[in-house]
Amino acid sequence: MRECFEVRDTDVGGRIGELTVPRADVTVETPALLPVINPNLDTISPRRLADEFGAEILITNSYIIHGTDDVREQALEDGLHDLLDFPGAIMTDSGSFQLSEYGEIDVTTEEILEFQHAIGSDIATPVDIPTPPDVSRERAEDELATTQERLEIADEIDTGEMLVSAPVQGSTYPDLREAAGRHADGTDLDVFPVGAVVPLMNDYRYDDMIDAVAAAKRGLGADAPVHLFGAGHPMMFALAAAMGCDLFDSAAYALYARDDRYLTVRGTRHLEDLEYLPCSCPVCTTHSPEDLRALPDDAREEALAAHNLHVTFEEIRRIKQAIRAGNLLELVEQRARAHPTMLDGYRTLLDHAAHLERADPVSKGAFFYTSHESARRPEVLRHHQRLDRLSVPDSLFLTEGDAAGGDEFDESWRVEPPFGPFPRALSKSYPLTAEVPDRTDRAALAAAADGVARLVDSNPDTEITLGHTGWPADVLETLPDHVELIDLTADRA
Amino acid sequence: MRECFEVRDTDVGGRIGELTVPRADVTVETPALLPVINPNLDTISPRRLADEFGAEILITNSYIIHGTDDVREQALEDGLHDLLDFPGAIMTDSGSFQLSEYGEIDVTTEEILEFQHAIGSDIATPVDIPTPPDVSRERAEDELATTQERLEIADEIDTGEMLVSAPVQGSTYPDLREAAGRHADGTDLDVFPVGAVVPLMNDYRYDDMIDAVAAAKRGLGADAPVHLFGAGHPMMFALAAAMGCDLFDSAAYALYARDDRYLTVRGTRHLEDLEYLPCSCPVCTTHSPEDLRALPDDAREEALAAHNLHVTFEEIRRIKQAIRAGNLLELVEQRARAHPTMLDGYRTLLDHAAHLERADPVSKGAFFYTSHESARRPEVLRHHQRLDRLSVPDSLFLTEGDAAGGDEFDESWRVEPPFGPFPRALSKSYPLTAEVPDRTDRAALAAAADGVARLVDSNPDTEITLGHTGWPADVLETLPDHVELIDLTADRA
Ligand SMILES: [Mg+2]
Ligand SMILES: [Mg+2]
Ligand SMILES: [Zn+2]
Ligand SMILES: [Zn+2]
Repeated sequence: MRECFEVRDTDVGGRIGELTVPRADVTVETPALLPVINPNLDTISPRRLADEFGAEILITNSYIIHGTDDVREQALEDGLHDLLDFPGAIMTDSGSFQLSEYGEIDVTTEEILEFQHAIGSDIATPVDIPTPPDVSRERAEDELATTQERLEIADEIDTGEMLVSAPVQGSTYPDLREAAGRHADGTDLDVFPVGAVVPLMNDYRYDDMIDAVAAAKRGLGADAPVHLFGAGHPMMFALAAAMGCDLFDSAAYALYARDDRYLTVRGTRHLEDLEYLPCSCPVCTTHSPEDLRALPDDAREEALAAHNLHVTFEEIRRIKQAIRAGNLLELVEQRARAHPTMLDGYRTLLDHAAHLERADPVSKGAFFYTSHESARRPEVLRHHQRLDRLSVPDSLFLTEGDAAGGDEFDESWRVEPPFGPFPRALSKSYPLTAEVPDRTDRAALAAAADGVARLVDSNPDTEITLGHTGWPADVLETLPDHVELIDLTADRA
Repeated sequence: MRECFEVRDTDVGGRIGELTVPRADVTVETPALLPVINPNLDTISPRRLADEFGAEILITNSYIIHGTDDVREQALEDGLHDLLDFPGAIMTDSGSFQLSEYGEIDVTTEEILEFQHAIGSDIATPVDIPTPPDVSRERAEDELATTQERLEIADEIDTGEMLVSAPVQGSTYPDLREAAGRHADGTDLDVFPVGAVVPLMNDYRYDDMIDAVAAAKRGLGADAPVHLFGAGHPMMFALAAAMGCDLFDSAAYALYARDDRYLTVRGTRHLEDLEYLPCSCPVCTTHSPEDLRALPDDAREEALAAHNLHVTFEEIRRIKQAIRAGNLLELVEQRARAHPTMLDGYRTLLDHAAHLERADPVSKGAFFYTSHESARRPEVLRHHQRLDRLSVPDSLFLTEGDAAGGDEFDESWRVEPPFGPFPRALSKSYPLTAEVPDRTDRAALAAAADGVARLVDSNPDTEITLGHTGWPADVLETLPDHVELIDLTADRA
């Protein structure tokens, strides 16, 4: 059990956790947002982040602090908490991203961690190599080896109460990401950033981002707090949280504000394109778009940054509430419609249903079927797996709705898309209490047929008859040949 | 052209309009929310509705005013604007809903309208018969006849500057709703409530609600302002707006607050079930759920009512912005995932794609394909209709992506799911600039195949070859026999 992190509640891969940060003497509830603070330019002061937005943790860049003389001196003298005037936890980034952009810096892992310790960081980051996507396998392996050496060095250093993060690299090679996750999990380091996903997010490659996170998660234990490094847009937080990300950082709130960009969970808008403000935050309920456009540059940047932070923290609260209520995937269903690339991300998340199923609670409020994608949810997979273990009689009638089978069968079970068959006694248990649309769809019927096929395959000696209501021919064709079919709509007509 | 209403912008069936209310001397921008005010109990005062929430119009019940002696006297003496202290437009409901619940009241249409005029209503409502869903056809017809008689009487009365609404009834009979719409449109009355949909909404029958609105809209002209009478939940506003509803009223904000219910666009939550507040409104950014639970009853009700109003007005602004930006259906896509019954509503909306297509703008920002349902959007239908009018050469190669056909064909066109084939010259025009997921789906391929089939049917003498990338057999089977097929993935392998 990792001492600094405790999972309190789960839904799909998402979890409510507590990250204990001993050096700051605070406990941060996750999923958490870490606003990125540039000590040279703060649009919204760290004190306001804590008081007005409820920020429990922030992240700042030790490379910038190191490189700015007066800031460095003050940080060394008074510490980051005083310098920034922030009462919560402070994480420092090593600056490896700047490193990769501006060329190597010539310092050792010891020096890097020592400096972060000296300025009073609560969670430090070693200098890793953020390998970009799509590089050669050789380069990805070489750079990962270097990152891993540095993590091993970091693991040996006594950092006192300061936590240390262990970035998980591996570019777009899932097996390398998984191996990197396993290696990092084997150290005594504390927080696990999935590194170098910013280029994927910048290119809207949410599918590849999900695969990278999923691979890292397979290597990491369930008790490892995972940081999606550089994830700034609230549109994709629910998706990433459902895959098991616990910490998000956002520089976007401030960077976007500088360019008059307005964040929403449906995407980014330019202030000049807004005729109405689709938000109820304190900024948007006291300003019209024209009001905002008329503000002086500094005030406008501050107002937009405040709005951007409000929607970002709001989404974090919405995600936490969804995890508590057990409807995180229903939130993801909505967010997946923000952009076709988000749909790709959701479809990719569902590729990992078997992995997600392991942590998903056995019972929740109600399963809502709200799209073709819902047919691939972990709960459907779990029900199909359970079909192998149910005992069946010699002859069995499977049917939609309440229609019973008469005397010719030993038993009659219900068939409900997308789950497939189940004994009527299970009707009252999750997920079979699902709310489904009146207008079903082919994906639900196909998943139900998969369930029937699975039951048939596990019970080759049982005579199985399916009473269906006009299922399409190509769905029925997926059933084993010896399943007897009765079209109940034909009966009724 | 109806004088009191002007449509400024459209998207799908949704529109930004201006409702001129001469007696109040105000112009109300639609879609608009009319908070319902009970003059005997106001949780949030009308003055606050105007100043804090930007309400331009509200609705109150003349039956309650009539039945409460001191309120009636004050209304008759000083007028509703003074009584309620509201600077915007005031609509009055006739009380036909109470009538249907508590038995007949013995007044004439003249008296009803005269009373509403006397108390200073800006938009009055005659007493119609709100026929519930699923009644016998005979009853629906009889009651509709009575409603229509009363509308004809109302049409004859000189009401001065006061606007008068013409409720559209007809129960769950689409042809009656359509006829009722046509009849109402033939009068000189001003505003058109789709009546008696509350029982449908109470039962989450959003599919049947959409069919009722669609039928009424077929009868009404495009210039008729349509009021979805009794629509209180912001979850379904975008769906209803996309079908062409312009006015919504909400008693829910106050009624729900009384029961500690918290509105969200994803559904209703009980305050006791909330551990986090998924909202950034002035209430939710200054209170935790525990803070709210600890408030005295009156203050809690007021705080919840204020939150409920904030999310409701926020959704109206979001819908307006979506109409301006031309992405209303993308908002509906998200809202459709709030509940399986909302998905039914969206699937039903798409049944009316041919009707919606007529008002939908020819060009917008970008078409986002975000679900299987997207394949049924009006833009896809319009492209298929256009295929009949394109001139084609003697031999034509259709292919996904950029692959060209070589010399053996006269021309090579692109095929893009869900649209189907088009000449490459159209690639830069809406909707063919669509953003589509990398991971396409069967619905998109099936729609593309429909497009191919349509082109083939319109051009029986052209030799058409389709180069596809592994389309499923049952999709390919829907193509006419004489289409030549080439599987390009087989080629590449
Ligand atoms: Mg992709
Ligand atoms: Mg229904
Ligand atoms: Zn805002
Ligand atoms: Zn709120």
